[in-house]
Amino acid sequence: MAIIVQKYGGTSVGTIDKIRYVAQKVANRYKDGNRIAVVVSAMAGQTDRLIELANEMTPRPDPRELDVLVSTGEQISVALLAMALKDMGVPARSLLAHQVMIKTDDAFNKARILDIEVQSIQRVLDAGEVGVVAGFQGVTEDQEITTLGRGGSDTSAVALAAVLNAEVCEIYTDVDGVYTTDPHLYDKARRLDRISYDEMLEMASLGAKVLQTRSVEFAKKYNVPVLVRSTFEDNGGTLVTREDSDMEGVVVSGIAFDKDQAKITLLGIPDRPGVAASIFNVLAQNNINIDMIIQNVSADGKLADISFTVSLNDFAKAMQIVKAQGNTLNARDVLGDTTIAKLSIVGVGMRSHAGVAAKMFDTLSREGINIMMISTSEIKISCIIDEKYIELGVRVLHDAFELDKSGG
Amino acid sequence: MAIIVQKYGGTSVGTIDKIRYVAQKVANRYKDGNRIAVVVSAMAGQTDRLIELANEMTPRPDPRELDVLVSTGEQISVALLAMALKDMGVPARSLLAHQVMIKTDDAFNKARILDIEVQSIQRVLDAGEVGVVAGFQGVTEDQEITTLGRGGSDTSAVALAAVLNAEVCEIYTDVDGVYTTDPHLYDKARRLDRISYDEMLEMASLGAKVLQTRSVEFAKKYNVPVLVRSTFEDNGGTLVTREDSDMEGVVVSGIAFDKDQAKITLLGIPDRPGVAASIFNVLAQNNINIDMIIQNVSADGKLADISFTVSLNDFAKAMQIVKAQGNTLNARDVLGDTTIAKLSIVGVGMRSHAGVAAKMFDTLSREGINIMMISTSEIKISCIIDEKYIELGVRVLHDAFELDKSGG
Repeated sequence: MAIIVQKYGGTSVGTIDKIRYVAQKVANRYKDGNRIAVVVSAMAGQTDRLIELANEMTPRPDPRELDVLVSTGEQISVALLAMALKDMGVPARSLLAHQVMIKTDDAFNKARILDIEVQSIQRVLDAGEVGVVAGFQGVTEDQEITTLGRGGSDTSAVALAAVLNAEVCEIYTDVDGVYTTDPHLYDKARRLDRISYDEMLEMASLGAKVLQTRSVEFAKKYNVPVLVRSTFEDNGGTLVTREDSDMEGVVVSGIAFDKDQAKITLLGIPDRPGVAASIFNVLAQNNINIDMIIQNVSADGKLADISFTVSLNDFAKAMQIVKAQGNTLNARDVLGDTTIAKLSIVGVGMRSHAGVAAKMFDTLSREGINIMMISTSEIKISCIIDEKYIELGVRVLHDAFELDKSGG
Repeated sequence: MAIIVQKYGGTSVGTIDKIRYVAQKVANRYKDGNRIAVVVSAMAGQTDRLIELANEMTPRPDPRELDVLVSTGEQISVALLAMALKDMGVPARSLLAHQVMIKTDDAFNKARILDIEVQSIQRVLDAGEVGVVAGFQGVTEDQEITTLGRGGSDTSAVALAAVLNAEVCEIYTDVDGVYTTDPHLYDKARRLDRISYDEMLEMASLGAKVLQTRSVEFAKKYNVPVLVRSTFEDNGGTLVTREDSDMEGVVVSGIAFDKDQAKITLLGIPDRPGVAASIFNVLAQNNINIDMIIQNVSADGKLADISFTVSLNDFAKAMQIVKAQGNTLNARDVLGDTTIAKLSIVGVGMRSHAGVAAKMFDTLSREGINIMMISTSEIKISCIIDEKYIELGVRVLHDAFELDKSGG
């Protein structure tokens, strides 16, 4: 009998009626002869309500206690789903992190799964019961309750599928798969039948809405096939899987974009070793992540200009830090720009196809879209452009690489 | 340093502001140099809301899953109280049943505490932290979550005080102690400074509103002094403690009453061994508890009348069963009466004072109150009377035994 891990997100279990609907879906698969572990998130809105309660108590809730508090959300939904299943005559058992032994480190609020003791869940499945596992939560060696950060239930499900050696990890959510680009932005966007782990990771902004990044890393590491599909519609979904030769035929799989970007430029700083490092060290100490970096050296070779991008959230703090650093370095000026965006094409086929970058740059330039910065990986090319051109850029690239047509 | 166990009920932690107020009380005691374990109930109304959610899912929720569900109520309040304490600079740590290891049997929804592993909580107190322990919940040997039934947090607190060998178990609630009778019924009712475990148990209806009966049994067994007092007023409260010689000076400590009573009478059943047993066996099989029983034998000695009382809740079901039994036994008739009530006087001094019963019966008869049934224990005399006389009965007995005056 195949072992299947299913995961249902918060909107899928948002009401009693929806939980009953989910129970029926699980029951059907169970009656088909499968052994099933179901990972469940908190009912939609519940985690936010709990965090609000904590913030009412204090502006800086203790991280350990916050995890004790918010982990009740998943506890409620697993109990209700197990009740619904038993009510339908399906043997079921809710399991919390300390019962399944989902062991994590002790980084409260953003813990990482270290290990899952497979015995407990295996025993439940061997007894012919559906294991209804609380997502998002873990337990440290000292029996402290932890949570895995937003979207952590995806990682719970993939990790469980890995230790159970499950046939597939099915992620049920309110979208029906991964698209070539955001369908809200371009109606020619097409649902992908398959996507590789690496592409999914590079899709970043597109993919992250569907699956927590860490869950994809986990799936890649343990080679767990992940099927993303809709809870309430019966479409095929998108299979996130390891790369195979079919995929190489497709040059570009998707167009990603990210408006949550800002650019900072230091003008006229000394061009000597250690100067750039000194700036980025201070930013790193303040937990500010840098994405792209460009450095130009002036004609006389003594001064340099340096530009880099940060997320919009970090912009104000980063500007403050960089201005202080700029003073120390006698920079001519520090400029900030929040009206930029990142546009990316992603595809494993790039590895074996030449001219992909040229086609991207050419397509954008023919529309008068100026490229400010470029960065590339093996399977991705990203450009920083003016934010106002982002919709246009997505559409022309989608057309140029013919993403509306099924590849492969 | 003294170890103190405090318990705060649902109304005491019903809002964020009230939890903050409770934290301040705990903080003050902590700063006085005490080592404190605080047991907390779910925020007022929360348990009912969770049970409602379960009932929305199914009319008969699975008992195991119901405990997983409702135990989240206490988890939320311990997390919030621990946050509030830390916010005030008091080291604190929330502890769930599986962390304190409050071991129970596996009778879901009404589990009994078997043992508490004192090491975990002791370690927290030794580290100078306030232990904030979830009441009402337990864990079986198999790591299953259980709950202790309504009012179970009282028992959690007393059990914790027992294993910690605490100086006192303070129960903070919305009443400020145990009264000689219900103050809503008679304004001369007086708060008792002290009451013995046995009297507290016999006070039944009066006492049960203040403390879960099982917690008093536990306190008696392990000789834990229990101080019942108000969360929001600074009165002395009532100390529930073991009997001492002072208490014997007081003949009657309190007047209890219970309107939740009904009487069933079988007329003309055969007076032979086993007949009464046959009736009560069937009632017991249906989980109906019998309180008082009276049997009269007719003049010819062949037929008997038998009367007994049940709680009002069980009356309809009991009548149905008894009527069926009556038919089998050829009873002349089966009569039911729901307009009765039980009036009791309680006091350890009865043991050493004669004439208490006579004084009770005399006082009632002078008011024209007819006594239908009588039962006595070493420290209690109960009478079944017409329900309409219950307020009158309480008042005249309260006056006759001078309960408005401090005894001792």
